[in-house]
Amino acid sequence: MPRAVRERQMMDAAVQTFGQRGYRAASMDEIAELAGVSKPLVYLYLNSKEELFTACIRREAGALVAAVRAGVEPGAPADRQLWDGLRAFFTHAAEHPDGWAVLHNQARTHGEPFAAEVARMRTEIVSFVTYLIGAAAREADCDSELAEREVGGLAHALVGAAESLAVWGNETPGVTAKETAATLMNFAWAGLENLMNGRRWAPPSSRG
Amino acid sequence: MPRAVRERQMMDAAVQTFGQRGYRAASMDEIAELAGVSKPLVYLYLNSKEELFTACIRREAGALVAAVRAGVEPGAPADRQLWDGLRAFFTHAAEHPDGWAVLHNQARTHGEPFAAEVARMRTEIVSFVTYLIGAAAREADCDSELAEREVGGLAHALVGAAESLAVWGNETPGVTAKETAATLMNFAWAGLENLMNGRRWAPPSSRG
Repeated sequence: MPRAVRERQMMDAAVQTFGQRGYRAASMDEIAELAGVSKPLVYLYLNSKEELFTACIRREAGALVAAVRAGVEPGAPADRQLWDGLRAFFTHAAEHPDGWAVLHNQARTHGEPFAAEVARMRTEIVSFVTYLIGAAAREADCDSELAEREVGGLAHALVGAAESLAVWGNETPGVTAKETAATLMNFAWAGLENLMNGRRWAPPSSRG
Repeated sequence: MPRAVRERQMMDAAVQTFGQRGYRAASMDEIAELAGVSKPLVYLYLNSKEELFTACIRREAGALVAAVRAGVEPGAPADRQLWDGLRAFFTHAAEHPDGWAVLHNQARTHGEPFAAEVARMRTEIVSFVTYLIGAAAREADCDSELAEREVGGLAHALVGAAESLAVWGNETPGVTAKETAATLMNFAWAGLENLMNGRRWAPPSSRG
């Protein structure tokens, strides 16, 4: 069997085990058995459980970012790009629940160097969303009204909302990725659209 | 010195140390020194570092939920309650950055039983937000249009967005709690308001 194929089998088994059983509870024996290889062979490819976990995080983070980017058509209207990107994100999280659990539950919860890997991916996604919101503001000719800082805040809000909804969607029976994406667009885009058109929600004291 | 006062000093020192240095790096020596007491005394009050950390999580979670509840005036219009609740949340997170770090960064990242403590608090906050969104829908006479499941999804989105924004606000120089709360209300409420009025964002394919 070619090395690449065998390595993928081991990584698949590792992601499944880490995602379902947790980093600490998962054993190399279990992963080797699930992959159908001997434990020494797993260690031959990757030197330690820590290295194997890091490799899983990198692979799953790369796959998630690639799925979001592939879902978006550059040059399309900004709300279309956001909708496509969100749908790609929720579809990927729903189809790869173990990968999503590795990134969202496991990688962030066992200290360094794992948390830094996920933080890097999150920064990349926040930058992409910041760019989309900025582009939407320019399309609506209101980029001067939305300060750069506010666009950054909105991107963080959207990414946090998406993460939280993906966990909820994977935990709630019968919720589809399309439904989760639509819920977030209803929540977020209609709000952003109002902002873009200068219709801002005002705190009670300034309503005159 | 009364026991309650001394215990509070120890807890304050523990929250500061855990929040700034992390659960693993923090030592009982350090906490005792910061509290101005002997290490045996710390162990006399709380048997282990694990118990001390659990006590910190409970105290900070209780304080955060209490701050949000105290900020909200029951019976006020729903958007007013949400605004007040969000402002109370961001103000508390900004004024207690170590407590927020304990809850958001530390407690969730060192496995059980700590993660379960924070999950309990999060469930309580999500329920409260679900109730507020449901109340808003009833006020707007559109509770039949918003399925219970969608209200749950919206509450998860709002809480996730708030968590993400609180981290961003605490990390970004010059951002005030009021500004963060306003960003989230612009993002969220205007969107919810559209939903309440039946103005839904539609995926591109169904725009006709």
